[in-house]
Amino acid sequence: MSDGSFDERDAAMSELLGIRSSIDNIDAALIHLLAERFKFTQQVGRLKATHGLPPSDPDRERRQIARLRNLAIDAHLDPAFAEKWFNFVVAEVIQHHEELANGAGAPGTVDEL
Amino acid sequence: MSDGSFDERDAAMSELLGIRSSIDNIDAALIHLLAERFKFTQQVGRLKATHGLPPSDPDRERRQIARLRNLAIDAHLDPAFAEKWFNFVVAEVIQHHEELANGAGAPGTVDEL
Repeated sequence: MSDGSFDERDAAMSELLGIRSSIDNIDAALIHLLAERFKFTQQVGRLKATHGLPPSDPDRERRQIARLRNLAIDAHLDPAFAEKWFNFVVAEVIQHHEELANGAGAPGTVDEL
Repeated sequence: MSDGSFDERDAAMSELLGIRSSIDNIDAALIHLLAERFKFTQQVGRLKATHGLPPSDPDRERRQIARLRNLAIDAHLDPAFAEKWFNFVVAEVIQHHEELANGAGAPGTVDEL
């Protein structure tokens, strides 16, 4: 489609800058949502530690993954990526909880995801 | 604080379910935003392929990481996690673009993040 003219290339560069600006806005939203998510998982960690609730719930995790895969399909996102992404975030939550548990001397409260 | 009574434990379980519901809402939002992000990076990949624009922009990536780290600090999220998370998403974008390039026979258009 392109004849390689400067005008066309300039228009493409301008379109590119617009898309990058949208990507930056989405990334800012993602970072803020992730921050909120960690606040909630930290709250869960404290709650479980205080009340002696079971640290992990494998059924809950399975349900979360199945649900996220379905949401991904509806949103035209690769469900395998959605699962990989969830596991990545969960690994960070576990690490945070472990650091918290080590610091607070409350091991066994590491797994709410 | 807890005396381990059933009432207290029930209240904690109820609070836990409420927090989980918030985590689920946030996760749904995250998945949908990730889906939008991929739509934009795919659009960039096509634009670059069509107009012969340079496939990668290391300065852009450095600016993205610096910005996300600052946003993370403002949102009380570990900036190291924000950077790790960005690199994780970017790795997926590169993989998608490579698959696209291999399928479409347009190598060298793989790196918009």
